[in-house]
Amino acid sequence: MRSVIQHLEESRIREVANAGMGRPDVLAFWFGESDEPTPEAVRRAAIASIERGETFYAHNLGLPTLREALAAYMTELHGAIGPERIAVTSGGVSALMIAMQALVDPGDEVVVVTPVWPNLIAQPQILGATVHTVALAPDAQGRWRLDLVALREAVGPRTRMLVLNAPNNPTGWTLTQQEQRAILDHCRATGTWILADEVYERLFYGAEAGACAPSFLDIAEPDDRLVVAHSFSKSFLMTGWRLGWLVLPPAMTAAIGKLIEFNTSCASVFSQQAGLEALAREAEITPRVQQHLQRCRDTLVPALQCVPGLQVAAAPGGMYAFFRLPGHPDALQTAKRLVVEAGLGLAPGCAFGEAGQGWLRWCFASRDPQRLLEGVGRLRRWLAL
Amino acid sequence: MRSVIQHLEESRIREVANAGMGRPDVLAFWFGESDEPTPEAVRRAAIASIERGETFYAHNLGLPTLREALAAYMTELHGAIGPERIAVTSGGVSALMIAMQALVDPGDEVVVVTPVWPNLIAQPQILGATVHTVALAPDAQGRWRLDLVALREAVGPRTRMLVLNAPNNPTGWTLTQQEQRAILDHCRATGTWILADEVYERLFYGAEAGACAPSFLDIAEPDDRLVVAHSFSKSFLMTGWRLGWLVLPPAMTAAIGKLIEFNTSCASVFSQQAGLEALAREAEITPRVQQHLQRCRDTLVPALQCVPGLQVAAAPGGMYAFFRLPGHPDALQTAKRLVVEAGLGLAPGCAFGEAGQGWLRWCFASRDPQRLLEGVGRLRRWLAL
Repeated sequence: MRSVIQHLEESRIREVANAGMGRPDVLAFWFGESDEPTPEAVRRAAIASIERGETFYAHNLGLPTLREALAAYMTELHGAIGPERIAVTSGGVSALMIAMQALVDPGDEVVVVTPVWPNLIAQPQILGATVHTVALAPDAQGRWRLDLVALREAVGPRTRMLVLNAPNNPTGWTLTQQEQRAILDHCRATGTWILADEVYERLFYGAEAGACAPSFLDIAEPDDRLVVAHSFSKSFLMTGWRLGWLVLPPAMTAAIGKLIEFNTSCASVFSQQAGLEALAREAEITPRVQQHLQRCRDTLVPALQCVPGLQVAAAPGGMYAFFRLPGHPDALQTAKRLVVEAGLGLAPGCAFGEAGQGWLRWCFASRDPQRLLEGVGRLRRWLAL
Repeated sequence: MRSVIQHLEESRIREVANAGMGRPDVLAFWFGESDEPTPEAVRRAAIASIERGETFYAHNLGLPTLREALAAYMTELHGAIGPERIAVTSGGVSALMIAMQALVDPGDEVVVVTPVWPNLIAQPQILGATVHTVALAPDAQGRWRLDLVALREAVGPRTRMLVLNAPNNPTGWTLTQQEQRAILDHCRATGTWILADEVYERLFYGAEAGACAPSFLDIAEPDDRLVVAHSFSKSFLMTGWRLGWLVLPPAMTAAIGKLIEFNTSCASVFSQQAGLEALAREAEITPRVQQHLQRCRDTLVPALQCVPGLQVAAAPGGMYAFFRLPGHPDALQTAKRLVVEAGLGLAPGCAFGEAGQGWLRWCFASRDPQRLLEGVGRLRRWLAL
């Protein structure tokens, strides 16, 4: 096997989850997924499609109707975006992998802002690129910040691609429009591609219902070196459907169609029909998801803040509380101990790069917010042991 | 964009299909897919899963129940194969891409036997490998043969991987057990990995019902440098489900799990439940598919053989008739003319590599074999023009 593949880091989250195997009493908040199934109407659309016998291959780039609906959805959020810029993929992770295949040659330099979902570091490594990281840093309150000066220093003309995930998994850090402008200006000057993973954009807890985090699409031109990856997973409770999409410079779409052919051929038609129904019901699904998650966040974070010495802030976006416990510097060890000794399943921050060492990620997407408080109770009892 | 991606060949099949856009009168046999939807019982299993709300992430390597059922299915066909050697993927194409990511470093040399499904050439190119081809050659009757001497010359210690697709798309060529032994022996000596795309193994037209083409799994040891790619698409009429699997050396499975995480995360649970039902009903589905396709082949090929000068043989496997028309050396041009002038949709042989130039591929997987004869009638009338 390739040495780069052998050395790809095993998921530290799974390592912790494995420590909890066969313990049905564990309250698990380790995975980035709501415990609520996909809305019934969306499931019905897929069932109707399967009943109609829509079990054949489809267009590489997605059903034309779905591409148009996605273009209309993106246009509503970010200004005019045509279907010729949309490619439907088998999940957000496949969208990101295919975008990297299109842009990253072996030996290329890729810069990734961390802590981050480990897939965004592994993908360029699989393609033979060299990955450099720029670390966010927490302030005293536990709010994570980007050092723009450090980012500008790290991204130069030799940098093929800058990868950003904001709202961020695991920290909840969200880019401001001003920061996006500064990054776009810099990358235009260096000729660097921006790959923006914006799958959490609708899990943004602003003042108004139905809000959306700032997006690079709000400020970029269609022909900018910008690719934005999206997913139905978070905003529509559709993790298991493996359905995502890319927003592309129009000149890139045909090549992405080829890459979809060579990676997965196409997304299942019935899953695409589910996506189409989800978009048609977006106004009833997504604001409800968002409001519920805000309630979850506002249940969990204040309860965590009452734990003496615990460092955490209510993040503006995402579905995670990222926090630090005093006197527990090794996150992997702490997370494993919490599983075994407290029955509490969290993800260790070191799973998201060195910058996350010592921190723990708590996914607060819970149908029943009481579960979150029960989890905090377990944490408190464990700390008091 | 990467130059290697820009230069990936556009699908010549799609180029022909595009020439037929908006012509509902075209009889299309260009894609490698039956026109029969997935069996009802299989679709019911997926519907039940969706109704139960199985819309969450699943294990990277697939549901344990499905891995066990696949291991039992493979064991029945090829001798003992345990679930620890099975990885469930999002389609056969994803299985192949992930296997290549595990094994092929940028700059590596990969040898592919052609004519072949173009994806098998594009995938190593995407990963930065150098691709060499070994061409099958047709005899006077239109039967395709492998030149073992040429293959042994092409595969040396510097060859990282040999890619074989048999039963073959597009020619129907099928490896004999003897040839497989010779290839395995040679690759053991050179240290070359064999990636065998055996998705058509059950579309094999031997004497007995339910037969199976010879497989490298019949003769290899578990720890041989052999990876076999499979799919539910052909044997179970499940193209649109995007469900496949790999049979791996046991030491490789964990790394493949990581690569699945970074490519697609997992296959949808409801699609995996459909696969599980398909395997449970294998004895009622697959032999029927096979017998029907044999009837299709034995309807189409003799009718083609009656066309003066046309060169074609009944292939032992697959679902294609691959044939040559005298006086029509440019397959792409011929296929385009056939669409426009005869209303007949075929795939040009040059889509499958230089070795296929001048040939045409006819997918005979048709619910109604009469459609095949109507197609031959159109071909004859066009030739008589």
